[in-house]
Amino acid sequence: MTYTEIEYEVKDRIATVTLNRPDRMNAYTFTMRNEMLDAFDRIDADDEVRAVVVTGAGRAFCAGADLEAGGDTFNKDKRQDMFAGEDVLEDGTPRDGGGTVALRIARCLKPVIAAFNGAAVGVGVTMTLPMDIRLASEKARFGFVFARRGIVSEAASSWFLPRVVGISQAMEWVATGRIFDAREALEGRLVSRVYAPDELLPAAYGLAREIADNTSAVSVAAIRRLMWSGLSATTPWTAHEADSRLMAAMGASPDAAEGVTSFLEKRPAEFPMRVSTDLPPQVPDWPLR
Amino acid sequence: MTYTEIEYEVKDRIATVTLNRPDRMNAYTFTMRNEMLDAFDRIDADDEVRAVVVTGAGRAFCAGADLEAGGDTFNKDKRQDMFAGEDVLEDGTPRDGGGTVALRIARCLKPVIAAFNGAAVGVGVTMTLPMDIRLASEKARFGFVFARRGIVSEAASSWFLPRVVGISQAMEWVATGRIFDAREALEGRLVSRVYAPDELLPAAYGLAREIADNTSAVSVAAIRRLMWSGLSATTPWTAHEADSRLMAAMGASPDAAEGVTSFLEKRPAEFPMRVSTDLPPQVPDWPLR
Amino acid sequence: MTYTEIEYEVKDRIATVTLNRPDRMNAYTFTMRNEMLDAFDRIDADDEVRAVVVTGAGRAFCAGADLEAGGDTFNKDKRQDMFAGEDVLEDGTPRDGGGTVALRIARCLKPVIAAFNGAAVGVGVTMTLPMDIRLASEKARFGFVFARRGIVSEAASSWFLPRVVGISQAMEWVATGRIFDAREALEGRLVSRVYAPDELLPAAYGLAREIADNTSAVSVAAIRRLMWSGLSATTPWTAHEADSRLMAAMGASPDAAEGVTSFLEKRPAEFPMRVSTDLPPQVPDWPLR
Repeated sequence: MTYTEIEYEVKDRIATVTLNRPDRMNAYTFTMRNEMLDAFDRIDADDEVRAVVVTGAGRAFCAGADLEAGGDTFNKDKRQDMFAGEDVLEDGTPRDGGGTVALRIARCLKPVIAAFNGAAVGVGVTMTLPMDIRLASEKARFGFVFARRGIVSEAASSWFLPRVVGISQAMEWVATGRIFDAREALEGRLVSRVYAPDELLPAAYGLAREIADNTSAVSVAAIRRLMWSGLSATTPWTAHEADSRLMAAMGASPDAAEGVTSFLEKRPAEFPMRVSTDLPPQVPDWPLR
Repeated sequence: MTYTEIEYEVKDRIATVTLNRPDRMNAYTFTMRNEMLDAFDRIDADDEVRAVVVTGAGRAFCAGADLEAGGDTFNKDKRQDMFAGEDVLEDGTPRDGGGTVALRIARCLKPVIAAFNGAAVGVGVTMTLPMDIRLASEKARFGFVFARRGIVSEAASSWFLPRVVGISQAMEWVATGRIFDAREALEGRLVSRVYAPDELLPAAYGLAREIADNTSAVSVAAIRRLMWSGLSATTPWTAHEADSRLMAAMGASPDAAEGVTSFLEKRPAEFPMRVSTDLPPQVPDWPLR
Repeated sequence: MTYTEIEYEVKDRIATVTLNRPDRMNAYTFTMRNEMLDAFDRIDADDEVRAVVVTGAGRAFCAGADLEAGGDTFNKDKRQDMFAGEDVLEDGTPRDGGGTVALRIARCLKPVIAAFNGAAVGVGVTMTLPMDIRLASEKARFGFVFARRGIVSEAASSWFLPRVVGISQAMEWVATGRIFDAREALEGRLVSRVYAPDELLPAAYGLAREIADNTSAVSVAAIRRLMWSGLSATTPWTAHEADSRLMAAMGASPDAAEGVTSFLEKRPAEFPMRVSTDLPPQVPDWPLR
C-alpha cells in the first residue's frame, strides 16, 4: 500500500508513523484509518522495528475527524469516513472506524510512543489511548470534544480513558468537552512528560532507543500483550496462568540464556530470537470478538 | 415527595442537592437515603437539569451514619436505617442502604459534582465515589472509618474506591480508618481540587456551567454511561461495540448536525435533543442485578 | 518450618518478614518461596498479628531471582527455582513460583506493608505488588528487568502492576527494563512515600501501629478481602452484594457494638472478635482457580 495521508519510515530499528495532512491539521479520514491499519501490520511483521513513534506533520498532531462534510460528517448513511466500511458488528452496525484503529494498536507487538507535537482533538487523542506512552510538546493541546459535537466518545475510549487517567479525570474532560493544554494533560496523567517543542522527538526516540538497545524483542512483545490483557483480566489467576505458560516457554529459550549470561558477563546482550518466527504460541491475544 | 433531610433546587439548569440536617452534621439516615433516591429520579427525568452539585448544609458535608441508636446502629435486626428495607438480595440479605444510593448515582444521566464543604465520613464519603468529580474546601475532612467501628466498607466502595484512588491508597485509608484533611485527599486523588471555603461552590457551579453551556445533553448522558460501564467492561471490545452503536445512532442525529455546523460557523450550539425523549436505546445501562 | 532464608518475628502485634540472604542481596530462591508461603500461613493463623512489614536484611530488599545457575536459571526442565514444583496448571505447566507467593499475599487477612530498604529487582519488586502499601528508603532502586533477561514479567504482575501504577507507567518500566530510583518510583506511584534510610522502618511500623491500635481485626480482614476482590469484580453489583452480606453480618456483631459505643464514649475500643475464630463466612475469597 502506498500511503497518501501518513508517512512511514524505519530507521535505527524505530518506526515513525507521521500523520501527514498538515494543510488540514492532519484531520482524520477513512483513508488515514486504512493507512494506519496497514502500517501497524507492517510494524508487527518487520523484525527491524523494535518500537514505534507516532507524531504529526506541521503544527498539529491530529485535529480530529475531518469535518469537511459539515453536519453530515458522522452520519453513517451519508459518510463512510468515521465507520469501518463493510466491517460490521454482529447486528449489522458498522464498526466505529477509530475503534478499529485503537484495537489494532492495542494488539501491536511493539511498544508505541505518541509524541504530541500540537493539537490532538477527538479521535486525534482517543486513537492514542492504546499506545503505551504519551509525551507532549508544551504546544500540545487536547480535547475530548465529542459532547460539544453532539456525538459520543469513540475509539473504545470508554474502556481506555478511565483506565489511563482515572474515571474522575476522564469524566471531567468528556463531560465538559473542553480544550486543555499540556500542563493539564500532565497533571491529569494523560501524558507522562512535557517537553520544549524541539526536545519532544529526541525524547521519544530516546525512549524507543532505550527499548531497542537493551531488551529481547520477543520478551517485549510477550510482555506488552501480558500487561494489556492483564488489565482486561478479571482476576489475577488469569494473569498467573498466562505468565506461568510464558515463563515456562521463554525461560527455556535462547533469549533467556543470552539475557542472563550477558548480564553475568557484564556485556550487552545479543538476543537471537525474532518476533516474526519465534513468538511463543502462549502469548495471549486480546479476546476481541 | 416532600424532602425533610435534603434540599433540592434547580437553577440555571443546575440541580443542587443539599444534605440538610445541620444540627446532626447531616448524618445519614434511612429517610435521607429515600430522599436521595427520589432526587436522582427527578434529576434524570427533568430536562432542565444538565448537571448536579451535591453539598452539605452548615459546617459538615455528612458525618456518616447517624449513631443515635448506639451499639445497635448497624444491627439489621434492630434497625432499618442502614438497610434497604424490603429490598433484599436473592438470598434474602437486606441490601446495604448506602449501596442503593451509590448504584443509583452511578446510573445517573447527568454529571454529578460533589462539593465537600466540611467533614465527609463513612457513608458520607463512600456515597460520593460514583459521582464524577469531587471538589473540596480546605476545611473538608475525610474518613473511611469502618474498621474503627467494627463494621466494613459499604456503598459498593470496594468497587469504586480502588478504581478512583488506586488500591494502595484505598487500603491505607480503609485499614487505618484515619481522619485526613483536604490536602491528603488531593494528593491521594480522592478530590480533584481544593478551594478556600467561599470559593468551593462557585468552582462547582463553574464546572457545572461549563457542561451546561457547551454540550449536548444527550451526548453527555450517553457518554457518562459509556465511561462508567466501560470501566466495568472486561475488554475494550465491549466498549467498541457500545460506542459503535452510539456513534451510528448519534452521528445521524440532529444534535450531531448542530454540533458540527455550529462549530464550523463559530457560534454557540443549540442542541435540539432532550434526554427524556431522545435518548438512544443503545445507551448502555449498568448490568446491576 | 524452620526458616533459613527469611526471618520471622512478631512483636507488639506486628509481624516482620525479613528476606535474609544478605550475602546474595536476598536473591529469591525456591526455598525462600516456600518459607514465604509458610510465613503468610502463620500470619493468617496468629491473632497476635494485626499487620505485616516485609523488608530485606543488609543493603538490598531483594535482587530478584538468584542467577547462580546462569543461562539455565529460568529453564524449567533444569531448574525448579522459579517454578512451583509439583504445583501445575490444568495443562501441566508448572506454576510460576513468584505467582504462587503473590497470590498467597493477595489473600492475606492482615494488611501488608513493604519497606524497600534497598534494591528491589525482578521478582523482588513484583512479589510486593499484592502488598497493600509500599514505602521506600531514598536508597531503594527498582527494576522490572524481565525483558533484559529474555524472559517475561511474572508473579501475576500483568494483573497487579497496571492497576497499581497505571498501564502507561507499567509499560514504560517493563518495556525498557530500566533500573530506577526511589524518586521515580514515587512519582510513578509504585511507592506511597520515600524516607531517609533510618526513617523507613519507623514509618512502616508507625503505619502498622495505626492499624493495630485503632481497628477491629475482623473488620480489617473483611475489608482487605472486599477491596482486593472488588478490584477484580466486573461490576459494582458484585461489590454491593458482598458488602451487603458483610454489613448484615458485622453490623450485628460484638465488634460493631464496641466500635460505635467506644466512639460515642470517646474511649479506645477493645474489640472482642478474633480473626481465627470469628471471621464471617461471607468474607469473599479470591476466585483463584
